[in-house]
Parts: sequence; structure tokens; C-alpha cells
Amino acid sequence: MSDARRHGSHLDARHHGSHLDARHHGSHLDAPSVIRTKRDGGILTDAAIDWVIDGYTRGLVADEQMSALLMAIFLRGMTPGEITRWTAAMVASGERFDFTDLGLPLVDKHSTGGVGDKITIPLVPVVLACGAAVPQAAGRGLGHTGGTLDKLESIAGFTPELSKTQIRQQLSEIGAAIFAAGDLAPADRKIYALRDITATTESLPLIASSVMSKKLAEGAQSLVLDVKSGRGAFLKTEAESRELAATMVALGNSYGVPTRALLTDMNRPLGYTVGNSVEVAESLEVLAGGGPADVVELTLALAAEMLDAAGVDGVDPAQTLRDGTAMDRFRRLIAAQGGDLSRPLPIGAHNETVTAAAGGVMGDIDAMAVAMAAWRLGAGRAAPGHPVQLGAGVRIHRRPGEPVAAGETLFTLYTDTPERLGAALGELDGGWSVGAAAPDLGPLVIDHLG
Amino acid sequence: MSDARRHGSHLDARHHGSHLDARHHGSHLDAPSVIRTKRDGGILTDAAIDWVIDGYTRGLVADEQMSALLMAIFLRGMTPGEITRWTAAMVASGERFDFTDLGLPLVDKHSTGGVGDKITIPLVPVVLACGAAVPQAAGRGLGHTGGTLDKLESIAGFTPELSKTQIRQQLSEIGAAIFAAGDLAPADRKIYALRDITATTESLPLIASSVMSKKLAEGAQSLVLDVKSGRGAFLKTEAESRELAATMVALGNSYGVPTRALLTDMNRPLGYTVGNSVEVAESLEVLAGGGPADVVELTLALAAEMLDAAGVDGVDPAQTLRDGTAMDRFRRLIAAQGGDLSRPLPIGAHNETVTAAAGGVMGDIDAMAVAMAAWRLGAGRAAPGHPVQLGAGVRIHRRPGEPVAAGETLFTLYTDTPERLGAALGELDGGWSVGAAAPDLGPLVIDHLG
Repeated sequence: MSDARRHGSHLDARHHGSHLDARHHGSHLDAPSVIRTKRDGGILTDAAIDWVIDGYTRGLVADEQMSALLMAIFLRGMTPGEITRWTAAMVASGERFDFTDLGLPLVDKHSTGGVGDKITIPLVPVVLACGAAVPQAAGRGLGHTGGTLDKLESIAGFTPELSKTQIRQQLSEIGAAIFAAGDLAPADRKIYALRDITATTESLPLIASSVMSKKLAEGAQSLVLDVKSGRGAFLKTEAESRELAATMVALGNSYGVPTRALLTDMNRPLGYTVGNSVEVAESLEVLAGGGPADVVELTLALAAEMLDAAGVDGVDPAQTLRDGTAMDRFRRLIAAQGGDLSRPLPIGAHNETVTAAAGGVMGDIDAMAVAMAAWRLGAGRAAPGHPVQLGAGVRIHRRPGEPVAAGETLFTLYTDTPERLGAALGELDGGWSVGAAAPDLGPLVIDHLG
Repeated sequence: MSDARRHGSHLDARHHGSHLDARHHGSHLDAPSVIRTKRDGGILTDAAIDWVIDGYTRGLVADEQMSALLMAIFLRGMTPGEITRWTAAMVASGERFDFTDLGLPLVDKHSTGGVGDKITIPLVPVVLACGAAVPQAAGRGLGHTGGTLDKLESIAGFTPELSKTQIRQQLSEIGAAIFAAGDLAPADRKIYALRDITATTESLPLIASSVMSKKLAEGAQSLVLDVKSGRGAFLKTEAESRELAATMVALGNSYGVPTRALLTDMNRPLGYTVGNSVEVAESLEVLAGGGPADVVELTLALAAEMLDAAGVDGVDPAQTLRDGTAMDRFRRLIAAQGGDLSRPLPIGAHNETVTAAAGGVMGDIDAMAVAMAAWRLGAGRAAPGHPVQLGAGVRIHRRPGEPVAAGETLFTLYTDTPERLGAALGELDGGWSVGAAAPDLGPLVIDHLG
């Protein structure tokens, strides 16, 4: 009875509100109390973030609870401090690679997701040829955007499933590895799949923490981010994209990985191709010294940033495309991961074309319309884990500003499932136009940050 | 090729934004597009609401997706039209009872959830004794609030699991049945369980639609709602509670079930008991013509509303408590559902008391503090489906305004699991005080609506 002799003091009464909160939510952590805090616009403590990420990774926090929390984060946002801790907790949910003992200038690039964004494919061999090394944990397509791994798998035999030992050996022997994230940031892998089905993808804190958790775990010593802005990006406005870039640059730097970003245009597709094998074919053109001007421009801009970040100077990335050294590096990299470039790339067995009713100049092309057409054709996924069609995609015959003659083919759509052609044509409809004058397009590289 | 001869017209370009939305989200319905609409503050169409409730009931919409949608609804709200349709879709997810052929004045009451709210137990026999009939789909405890079914199950043998045939027969023979919702509004049952673990309980549209979906399906011809306001209610402010009451009254009326509401105080517990068996014991005191003044007052106020709604007049509910007719009806009702009132009610095997350090007058008592103490003692659930302790609860010895002598017992806590006593005492701490003067309490019945 002794410790039950209590009374409600005036002090207790004064602290009534906060006292009650502690009572109702429990002083120990539980998922509803963490969700409630964010739901009500509060700031999650470090302990709450660590607890919920660890608990979700281990299955103690249910998918339903994480979904509600993700929606609360989507609508309430996160402070820079919360984003930093959330990212750190996701990194800590798995292994963090460390290849510093190899003595290589380890640098990587990551794009926030675009349309026709095959840049990694020519970029990695270019920086390799210039003397940097690239440990790249790459991703698969998400929503309307393509993924480097899906594209590279259109090369017969290529596998991104590398063990840590294989990655280390490949870095040591040829200087690069492009691999599936595997055990890196397993919390992010679970959350990523959940975001795709719960409409919580386009959230700055969730994008930033997802990207950076994988990139901080993969073992790169510095990072260059390609942050997309425009119709084909996840975040549409330049202001949002700038904030995302600044957030990720700060995250990388706070984690001891020097990070910088290019802010680049994603209103129209990159290059003439959107899909899987069609983008690999176009990347090979770039590596052969040709290819679309915009793809070459962005490849070289990102290469310059990566080489600078890695402390490699006195080399000209453009020269590696002209003299074939980048192509050599690409062949070695693909061969090391089982790929056979002597075998033909797959292409959809069925195709359909869109032709010009009248002549003129090709106007702007909406990246999202083309992305959705490629997605309908089978180049993307309906749900996480589903297969993609390697040969599905869109070839753009006339880029914005190029002359068009009446009757000319403007787009070719490829698929293995011809019943998808109608819907894909519907997606393209209204996403382009032929006019009298060339459209006024902004710069491809909008800004440098960090 | 013919239908592929397309061009982007100026008209298409003008409708670009909306066109894109239709494209990205699909003209057919899918869960992410429904979630996205509410997430972005939009209004769900009738078709979208029907689709998502039906899909969730049938398992086509995943728990994760419904959780994200519930959080979006929590933070974005719903229009009256959306709430009406959401409720109708939940009613349509199961059977809707119809007992009109019995020719009885079928009326029911529902409380939005309180602390010590045992009112249903004396109320149903009072209105029965006055000549109305009550088909009541009752609930179990949710969060900090108790449930009528959990309380009644402390009577040995009592079962709320009645078939539709049994309910009909019982209504016909004795005029009332208190039953588990069972197949009524199965969508609500699934959503209710989800809300409890995802911190989406305290949402006006979700509370209103949950309550009314069950009440509109149970077969009552008119409804009286007891809408709680204050510290122990789900919605804390009077303004929120008024809006909830108005929303539910409108919902009932729009569905052809005349509905009215009392707005009542829930800042302090009702009566002297909070728990399961302790509340049944107190209800028996009321039915025997005694009991706490506030419990009697609210019982009679609600009875008057129910009888008026049912068109029963010329009877005095208070008389049925004085002359024992209400007690007779209660015995018949409990016996019809298997309950044996001759056996003793269970009480927690362990108890602890809180005594007054000094004399004075009992101040206000925080309903939430007492509710959480009872919950810690085992009277409520840690998770949906868990059992409750029938004998766990709190007895309040001195109500606000009653004189207190130094050393007197103020609270007794009962539980079968004595290790819970410490936490329960902690919950009570700060939730009450003894002072020099009686606290200034507002009216119990704040307003009549509808």
C-alpha cells in the first residue's frame, strides 16, 4: 500500500497535457504511437526512427503500420534531421560495403529516375576508361521509369546478382561492378515495394532516404547525383527537384561521402529510345562514338563531375568515346558479369508506327506520354517482382526541333504482346505535335549543386 | 496502321494536364489511383468508393493499401457526400436486417465511446419496459473505451453470438436482442481492426461511417446517438463532437432511418466504476432503483429520446426503475441469451487502493486517466481479438465534488495480474486531485441535435 499513497499534485495538474500524452502512447515505443506523432505533424525522435525501421525490417512492425506511417510522412514531411536519421537507420538495417582497402578512386552516380535515361550504360565505361572505379548498386524500373538492371538484362547472359566477394574481385580486376542492391539497406527494399502500391512514391523525404541508403551502403567514396526535373521526373517542379538535390547532397556529406548533384531536364525523353533493349542498342551507339547529342552531352557532363569528385584529372572523357577505350571497358564489364554482346539484342515481335499527317517541325515530346506508352507495351512492371519485356519499347524517329515530312514515321512501338499496342498508342496521343516552328527548349543541364 | 495515324492536336495540348492524369492513373479503377486522389486532397467518386470498399472486403485491395487510404482520409477528410457513399458501401458489403414485418417500434441507441459508459445495460430494459423494441448490434472495447459486449460477458453464460433467426425470435418474444455485429457491414469490421493498429481511429469521417454502417444494417427504424465530448472521448473538442453528431444525424436521415443525437460530457467517467464486471454490478444498482445520479440521469435522458423517436408516449421511464419492471425485462433479456444472474460476477483476485493524503473535496477526475488505468489492469485489449479480464477495473469511491477525509480510500484497482498494478497506478497519477472547493463541472447533457 505504501507506494499507492498518491495524490494528484498541482505540479501534475500543470503538466497535464504532456503527461496524458506520455500515458496514452506509452513511454516505451509502439507502432501506433510513432504513426500518431507523424500524423499529428510532430517530429520523430531518433529512438522512434531507429525502432520503427529495425522493427519493420524484422517483421515486428506490420506492413499496414508502415503504410500508414509512409502516408503520414508523405503528407506531413520530415525535417532534415529526421531524413538523416531515417536514412542512417535504413543503412544500418543491412551490411555496408567498404572497399577502401583496394586503394581505388571509388565514385558512383545515381539518377532519380527518368525516361530514356540509359546514361549509366555509357557513363560507367567512360569514367573507367579515365581511371576511376565504380561500385554501382543499380535498380530496377519503378512506376513509369526504367531501371538500369532491366535494361542490361537484355544482354544475353548478363547477371547483376553478384556476391560481395565477386564485387570486390571485379572492382579489383576491371574497376567496376553493376549489381543488384541485394542485402544493402533491406529496410529500403521492403519500403520501396510498399511505396509502389500505396501511392507514396513521389515524396521528397522518402525518395532522398531511399536513394541515399543504397548509395551510402554500396561502398562509393564520393557520389554524383543526376536529379531530374520536369514532366517525366517523380518531382515535377524545379523547386522540388532543387530541394531534393540539396537534401541528398547534405545527406551524403553528413555521412562522410562527398556528394554533388546536377539538376537536369526531364521534360522530354533522353535520346531516341525508351524501353530496355532499345536503350542498350542506343548506348552502344554512344560508346561507338555516335549516338544522340543529348545522351552524349549528359554522359560527358556527369563523367566530368565524377572524375573531379574522384580526384582524377588530366583526362578527356570525350576522347574515350572517340578512341574506343570506353567501348573496350564496357565489353570487359559486361563479359565479367556473364553478358554476351555477340548475341543479338531482343526486340518486340510486333510493332506499330505513328506517322505524320502533315509536314513541319517536330514539337516538344512529353516524356511522361512516351514513358507510359513504353510501360503499356511491357517495358515496365504492373507490380513489384513482375517480369518486364526486354524487347518492348518506343523508338522516337524525330526529336523535338527536327524537320518532319508528311507521311514520315515519327514513332515505332515494339512489344511481344500486340494486344497492348492500342493502349500504348493511346498514351502517346496528345504527347507530341508537329508545328511550323521549332519548340523553345531549355538547357539539358540546368544547374550544378554541392 | 490506319488507327495509328495520329497527331497531337491543339485540343489535346490544351487538355494536357487532365489528359495526363487520366493516363497515369488509368481510366479503370486501381487502389494506388484511389489512394492518390485522396492523398492529393481530391474527392473520391461514388464508383471509386464502391470499388475500394468492395475490393477490400473481397481481399482484392490489400491491407497495406487500405491503411494508406485511411491515413489519407484521416489527414485530408471527406465531404458529406463521400461519407454517405462510404457508409452505404460498407452497409452493402454485408446483409441488412429488416424486422419491420414484426410490427414493433424498433429503436436503438449508440454511444461514440466513453469511460464507465455502461448506459446501454440499464437503458435497453427501461425502454423495453416502456413498450419500445431494441435490435442492438453492440461492440467490444476499442482503444481506451469499453464495449457493451465485453461487459455483459462477465455474466456467466451470456452470449452475444445470435443468428438472424435468433435475433428475430428474441425481438418477437421479449422485444430486444444485444448481439455481435457478425455479418453486418463486414467491410467495417476489417477497417475497424486496421484503424486500431494504424493510429487512424480518431477521424470524424471514419468514426461516423463505422458507427452508422452497423446501425443502418441492424434493422432499427430510428436511432438515438450519444455523442461524447471531452477528455475521455475519441474527439476531444465540443466543436468536433458537434460536427460528428451532425454528420451521423444527416447520414441516418439520408438513409431513411430518423436519427437524433445527444451531445454529452465525457470529461470524467460515468458513475463510480470503469471496467467490465464492475460496470455490470453498477448497472444492476440502477435497475434496482439506486445507482449513481449521473448514470441514472443519462439513462433517463436517452430513454426519453428513444421513446419519442419510436412514437411511444404516455409512459414514465423513471417509474420502470422504481417499480422493478426494468429489472424484470433485464433478467428476461439476459436469460434469453444464456446469462445466469444468480451466479456471482467475477472480480479481479488482486487489488490495490489509492488513499487521500489529506482531507478536502474531490476535484475533477480525468476520464482518460481512469480509462488508461482500467486498460492497464486488463479490462481492455492490447490488440484486436485479444481477451479481456472480466474482473479488471477501477472503482471510484469519491466522485468530483464529494467530501474526502484524510486516509480515506479514493480508488480501488482490480486485476487478475498483479504485475499490472504499478502501471495502472501510474496512469491514475495526476488524473485527479483533492482540493478546498468543489470543482466547477458543466452539464452532463450538453445539447440535443437532430
